[in-house]
Amino acid sequence: MSTATTRLRVRFKETDQMGVVHHSEYPVWLEVARIEWLRDRGLSYRELEDSGISLAVSELEVTYRAAARFDDLLEVTTMLSESRSRRFTFDYRISRPADAVVIATATTRHVPTDRTGRAVRMPDDWLSALSVRVA
Amino acid sequence: MSTATTRLRVRFKETDQMGVVHHSEYPVWLEVARIEWLRDRGLSYRELEDSGISLAVSELEVTYRAAARFDDLLEVTTMLSESRSRRFTFDYRISRPADAVVIATATTRHVPTDRTGRAVRMPDDWLSALSVRVA
Amino acid sequence: MSTATTRLRVRFKETDQMGVVHHSEYPVWLEVARIEWLRDRGLSYRELEDSGISLAVSELEVTYRAAARFDDLLEVTTMLSESRSRRFTFDYRISRPADAVVIATATTRHVPTDRTGRAVRMPDDWLSALSVRVA
Amino acid sequence: MSTATTRLRVRFKETDQMGVVHHSEYPVWLEVARIEWLRDRGLSYRELEDSGISLAVSELEVTYRAAARFDDLLEVTTMLSESRSRRFTFDYRISRPADAVVIATATTRHVPTDRTGRAVRMPDDWLSALSVRVA
Repeated sequence: MSTATTRLRVRFKETDQMGVVHHSEYPVWLEVARIEWLRDRGLSYRELEDSGISLAVSELEVTYRAAARFDDLLEVTTMLSESRSRRFTFDYRISRPADAVVIATATTRHVPTDRTGRAVRMPDDWLSALSVRVA
Repeated sequence: MSTATTRLRVRFKETDQMGVVHHSEYPVWLEVARIEWLRDRGLSYRELEDSGISLAVSELEVTYRAAARFDDLLEVTTMLSESRSRRFTFDYRISRPADAVVIATATTRHVPTDRTGRAVRMPDDWLSALSVRVA
Repeated sequence: MSTATTRLRVRFKETDQMGVVHHSEYPVWLEVARIEWLRDRGLSYRELEDSGISLAVSELEVTYRAAARFDDLLEVTTMLSESRSRRFTFDYRISRPADAVVIATATTRHVPTDRTGRAVRMPDDWLSALSVRVA
Repeated sequence: MSTATTRLRVRFKETDQMGVVHHSEYPVWLEVARIEWLRDRGLSYRELEDSGISLAVSELEVTYRAAARFDDLLEVTTMLSESRSRRFTFDYRISRPADAVVIATATTRHVPTDRTGRAVRMPDDWLSALSVRVA
């Protein structure tokens, strides 16, 4: 119930000369998946940004388990694992359904900030939408 | 006199699975070179941006002549080829000094815009600095 | 009949500090759209690459008409406009259906190359699939 | 003695609409710094890649401490913190000398792999060059 699944097709641009996806592309996918997780709960990250609040990334951890390749269809499963007024943690699993391989697992921690980068409290409607999910 | 030369080393991330630099990385290098061209003339693009004006790209043309590879040392030669109050054109040549190969030639056209994206006139000090160069 | 339409949602990562999509992201979208155009015709670019042939980009032209923003849903319409055994040209229009705005128009030219970067003739099945479309 | 310092200027492309560098750009800088660390010790990552061996990233951890901005001059200090025949760990500190702010700290873990992605033993000259550094 607190998870969302996002499907992605690997872009040619995301590969490097090793013939696999470059490791720095994974955080971009995590961000796409996180924003879809929010959208599923009626929360528009675009509107939050327009109101002057961002969910800044304070920590990133990725464990790379198998290579992803150009044109692969991947699934990112996103789960909110911690929710406080000034700190949120998401866990992710990136997998390739075609052969049931787990490509990577990851965690991102976030701090709500205003446009000057100062930590702020989340808007109440966001807090209530987010807090329900972890309990 | 109206040219500047910027040196770059190709990053591993800039390659793709063909084993060469992906074509979408070239505009990033052109931007780095353009900003160095401005810096050479005492113009800080960071300050222009902070004042609310951007040199939005309105047109991009790149001709790819030879592949660039990871770890190559490249030179981007930048030249202002047109300068009006509301339109600027830069020409570029990307080369690899080690074997005197021309990697690409390119042109970018720019329109000064404010934060809403509306075309604006450049600040006078920028105009005078830029206009001298083409004459 | 020789066109394909690809839908994309703008990623947060694709924006820059002007608050709009960075101009270097457009070639990445064109590539995604071109590969979908091929897929629509039963041509797998992944298989072509695996066989050692790439459609290297020899020229790129983009005209930027309106800004694209984070979370925008965009459509890329792709059309093969020239097809020879050793040269292919695609034209593109990127638009935002929500307000019927044309974001950009673009052209890419391609040369089939082998793994050493030498120009080669396309495989016959590719040639016949591609040649029909332009006539 | 086992550290290297790499200087970088933040590219405009590396910013996002929050007005700061996007968090997915940091791993790209770490890679640049790691390759410079190797170069300082006479090890060419380009040659290792050409020989068919890569230092695949198996884990990535980044702690984001302060925002980096367009045009900032940054320093990445790189340190080899673990060295075995089939596993290497690097620690990093990204700082901004102008105001002595630490931007981020990070760790990457690596496994030497061949072109099929299988874990392999490092070449002896690499092992001896790397093993000295940690002791």
